[in-house]
Amino acid sequence: MSGKSELRRKPERSVAETAERDAVLDEGLIAHVGLVAGGGGDGRGGDGDGAHPVVIPMLCARLGDRLLLHGSPASRLLRTAKGGVEVCVTVTLLDGLVLARSAFHHSMNYRSVVVFGTASEVTDPEEKVVALDRLTDHIVPGRMAAIRPHTDAEIRGTTVLSLPLDEWSMKVRTGPPIDDDEDMDAPAWAGVLPLGVRVDEPVPDPLMSEREVPSHVADWIRGRQG
Amino acid sequence: MSGKSELRRKPERSVAETAERDAVLDEGLIAHVGLVAGGGGDGRGGDGDGAHPVVIPMLCARLGDRLLLHGSPASRLLRTAKGGVEVCVTVTLLDGLVLARSAFHHSMNYRSVVVFGTASEVTDPEEKVVALDRLTDHIVPGRMAAIRPHTDAEIRGTTVLSLPLDEWSMKVRTGPPIDDDEDMDAPAWAGVLPLGVRVDEPVPDPLMSEREVPSHVADWIRGRQG
Repeated sequence: MSGKSELRRKPERSVAETAERDAVLDEGLIAHVGLVAGGGGDGRGGDGDGAHPVVIPMLCARLGDRLLLHGSPASRLLRTAKGGVEVCVTVTLLDGLVLARSAFHHSMNYRSVVVFGTASEVTDPEEKVVALDRLTDHIVPGRMAAIRPHTDAEIRGTTVLSLPLDEWSMKVRTGPPIDDDEDMDAPAWAGVLPLGVRVDEPVPDPLMSEREVPSHVADWIRGRQG
Repeated sequence: MSGKSELRRKPERSVAETAERDAVLDEGLIAHVGLVAGGGGDGRGGDGDGAHPVVIPMLCARLGDRLLLHGSPASRLLRTAKGGVEVCVTVTLLDGLVLARSAFHHSMNYRSVVVFGTASEVTDPEEKVVALDRLTDHIVPGRMAAIRPHTDAEIRGTTVLSLPLDEWSMKVRTGPPIDDDEDMDAPAWAGVLPLGVRVDEPVPDPLMSEREVPSHVADWIRGRQG
């Protein structure tokens, strides 16, 4: 079986291509943002905790070679991060469950990008509008063209952070399970259950008379359907 | 419009019910695990980096009032965490995209559980088997009954960590967009695009003659279909 093993090994690999990285960051709807809280450095103080990790799900969008994060100026994570604390932003796309003949070789097929760096606040109003447009269009492309522009109060009322895509890594697993030779005749079913994002029937706001979804929403739903 | 605003406000809320927490932890297929790396405390040393956050996607499963993590004994994150470093484990279920009449009120419907604590290694072989069974059955319930038991080498060759569900928080957002009164007559479509996990046609291992998926897999797929 060694020829076969040769072909099938290393289903998990590191990826260094920026195009593959960008595809993951652009497809991912949510990022998990980690930072080190406590330890006196985040302005909380007084609670007796030492430095500890905090991981929060957030919307995130790529603009060229930067990642944008945003939220309320009151958000603890954003207040901490804008002070220059290092963050780690991870975007994971789960592509499948890998069912092997042994529990040990069960796995997941996935694409995952981890970005390290120090986020800085975007304060220039024009840059901030570009960033907010991008964050909105990341949710559904074409959305900004379908709604009114941001007001000055909204621009002031949102904290936007920008993180350079300088230090990052990407891991990918694809393909079938890799079982041990002695398990190959086991009676267990082995294979992959491919996963994706399911989009169900849109639910119009009950306070809106319009029922028909506009083309940018219909296009997005079609694009997500496997 | 104040009566309506009254009814519709606070779509985002904290949840303190352990049953709701457990439902999220049990439904989530992947967790994002954060820890503080570098700073001399993780045995890496010598790379000149200070303490910084690292966030890694991992399989995780709940066993009663504990969370289980596992991986290769060579995994840097697991080697770091078993030394008693604090971790933060976040499980997020993305339930929908919330499209509002203004970019500012765009949002996500989600359920998210954040667990803080110090993970300890499970070393007792019998406890380790129970934990590995649970991690495997978390992927697809009934899986362990369909495959052979773990071998001693596999048990030794896996690091299992256990984290008490003592310190945690949960946040949920549900419902339609909440727009400002002055935007309610805007022509933009507003509403929710409900999201879930899409399971595509199972792909049998090409090295297996059996094509038909067994009942535990068929049941799982049916249960995931909205």
